[in-house]
Amino acid sequence: MITIEEAEKIILNESFDYGTEMVPLVKSLGRILAEDLFSDRDLPPFNRATVDGIAINIEAYHSGNRNFLIKGIQAAGDNPISVTDKNSCIEIMTGAAIHECFNTVIRYEDLSIENSCATINQGTFKPYQNIHLRGKDKLQGEILVEKNKVINPAIIGISASIGKTNLLVRKLPRVLVVSTGDELVRIDETPNPYQIRQSNGLTILATLQKYKIRAHKIHLKDDKKNIELTLKKSFEEYDVILLTGGVSMGKYDFIPDVLQKLKVKKMFHKVKQRPGKPFWFGKKAKNKFVFAFPGNPVSVFMCLHRYFVPWLRKSMGLKETKEYAILGNDFEFPIELQLFAQVELHMNEDGQTIASYHNTNGSGDFSHLAETNAFIELPANQNTFKKGEAFRIWRYN
Amino acid sequence: MITIEEAEKIILNESFDYGTEMVPLVKSLGRILAEDLFSDRDLPPFNRATVDGIAINIEAYHSGNRNFLIKGIQAAGDNPISVTDKNSCIEIMTGAAIHECFNTVIRYEDLSIENSCATINQGTFKPYQNIHLRGKDKLQGEILVEKNKVINPAIIGISASIGKTNLLVRKLPRVLVVSTGDELVRIDETPNPYQIRQSNGLTILATLQKYKIRAHKIHLKDDKKNIELTLKKSFEEYDVILLTGGVSMGKYDFIPDVLQKLKVKKMFHKVKQRPGKPFWFGKKAKNKFVFAFPGNPVSVFMCLHRYFVPWLRKSMGLKETKEYAILGNDFEFPIELQLFAQVELHMNEDGQTIASYHNTNGSGDFSHLAETNAFIELPANQNTFKKGEAFRIWRYN
Repeated sequence: MITIEEAEKIILNESFDYGTEMVPLVKSLGRILAEDLFSDRDLPPFNRATVDGIAINIEAYHSGNRNFLIKGIQAAGDNPISVTDKNSCIEIMTGAAIHECFNTVIRYEDLSIENSCATINQGTFKPYQNIHLRGKDKLQGEILVEKNKVINPAIIGISASIGKTNLLVRKLPRVLVVSTGDELVRIDETPNPYQIRQSNGLTILATLQKYKIRAHKIHLKDDKKNIELTLKKSFEEYDVILLTGGVSMGKYDFIPDVLQKLKVKKMFHKVKQRPGKPFWFGKKAKNKFVFAFPGNPVSVFMCLHRYFVPWLRKSMGLKETKEYAILGNDFEFPIELQLFAQVELHMNEDGQTIASYHNTNGSGDFSHLAETNAFIELPANQNTFKKGEAFRIWRYN
Repeated sequence: MITIEEAEKIILNESFDYGTEMVPLVKSLGRILAEDLFSDRDLPPFNRATVDGIAINIEAYHSGNRNFLIKGIQAAGDNPISVTDKNSCIEIMTGAAIHECFNTVIRYEDLSIENSCATINQGTFKPYQNIHLRGKDKLQGEILVEKNKVINPAIIGISASIGKTNLLVRKLPRVLVVSTGDELVRIDETPNPYQIRQSNGLTILATLQKYKIRAHKIHLKDDKKNIELTLKKSFEEYDVILLTGGVSMGKYDFIPDVLQKLKVKKMFHKVKQRPGKPFWFGKKAKNKFVFAFPGNPVSVFMCLHRYFVPWLRKSMGLKETKEYAILGNDFEFPIELQLFAQVELHMNEDGQTIASYHNTNGSGDFSHLAETNAFIELPANQNTFKKGEAFRIWRYN
């Protein structure tokens, strides 16, 4: 049996670049940007008024003039108005382009206007005050957004400002989610006393939805021949197959056998971890992968966040980001397996994330997943865990 | 001018419950759960095998028997098989319901099977080993998920397991986003040297999309009559109007006037903050609100996250959660306004969130929003900020 670190290394080593595609800007939220975005002109593109007031030449003010004749009003978007006389001014609105004959903007709050004449109040005024100078933020051709980032609302705004109606993004793998197990009934059916409803498929679909993957989902009975035929066909249409159930030691755990028959190369089977020990991972081709999770809902959830999501992020070109939390309470776990414990996170006023451990009766109990936010990853060689110790966390909400 | 705290208090005081609606489970991700979810039966619903192996009565083992005749094989979902002889067993699969004549499951790893007889290896075996007892996690009728939570993949899985094909969720307000300004052109147009492209509307739509609000968006020229007519009509169809631009001191800043004419009650205008000082907030009726942001993209973004999102969360019944970070570098801000500085967050191995300050040339520069993740809220009465000091943060990615 391999360790979590070994399993992680094998999986991340198999990350795959599925290429790129163009999508409309309005549909790009949450996708991964695959092109650098450049400024199409200087930012700001002109000397821009940052307040409403009057534009003057500060030299006249420094020469002692306090009264400026108003020669016009310039709104944002208008062609810049100029004056020839240093003792004249124009009224100018926030966002308007300032003509080069002016070098200072005085706010309405700092002046009074009567009979088309603006009188500047007592105060200290400096050249270029209230002017956002052309190119101060970025020059034309400078990079605004680097590729390999999740497209968020800020990036959408920046893209709009430079006229990108479409964005080049990473293509997502086509994913099929397959649950197996004769004991599972549909959610709209009433299970007999020994059956349970299918939930893993929907949990996985919802998690993938957060990463903008619209996966398909099917359920298969424990019928070896049918599983084989269905998976065989699925490899033609999908890049990644996420299986749940059928990977343990049971008589009807056909998955490892079937995958071997289908020439899916086993990269590993079983990891020293709780939950999720029987996890199986393999590849069919350089771009075709199978993540076969155990059927237990908490195992599925953990393996999905600990293995599939990091694989997806790396395949999409995203940097690895590690998160940690300190334990909010003491507890014990007397078994030599790496434990993924369900914790509830909160942040203290020093910006530190605290993880409160919820005792969850082992891997079967998914009823606590709604009260908790993350798995905390606790090492196998440690049995007693103390308040204040820091460990890595994997958020799931 | 009021402070941020005063503005926040006024806005949160106006949170409004827009009621509830049923949505299909598969469309509920990210919505706010408006009903408690209860267990429809004990969890687990039966004594459940947690491993693959044989089910025995431990008394026979304690009496010295090591060889158990296999009387059948029971898969998950099957009716429980019983035996009459204590020295008999059945093979049982993970997830299967264990008949009450058995009280222990021995893993395949701990036995050998030959000629329909299972021989148990050396080891220590206890009653109820490898059995997840009926009702251990939750009893029928116990609460599984409390309402007023964001529906995440775990809640979707739990809902599926109890047969909820639909969920009661909070209704979202109907939101209209209105940008104003003659200097703004569409993103597929080429601006003249003094114009810029519309970006605020799309940034707002994308932010709302994260909260599952599908808002509509329009752009209006600085035409007072047309703004008045359009807004008047909009109050019939929408609960919340988010405006950008036209709220400052300029000649064409018609918004406060128009809103007054439309009998929208001004709750405040202007907040002691940078960016976003000219922010205007008002109400038309107990369920109709106007958030009128300044036109500057960073101001819009800040006001949206600092005021609208908390209002929305409170209106949806969500608890307030505060986040903090410590500064990663020293810097100065010599103006007596509360500053929302753009920072890049990362987490250290002690689970502490560190905020690196990016110098962003004042409010106009939205080009840094893609490199940063949050605003850090710095008090007005402090000008020098030191590495290691903790302040509240507002994430935007």
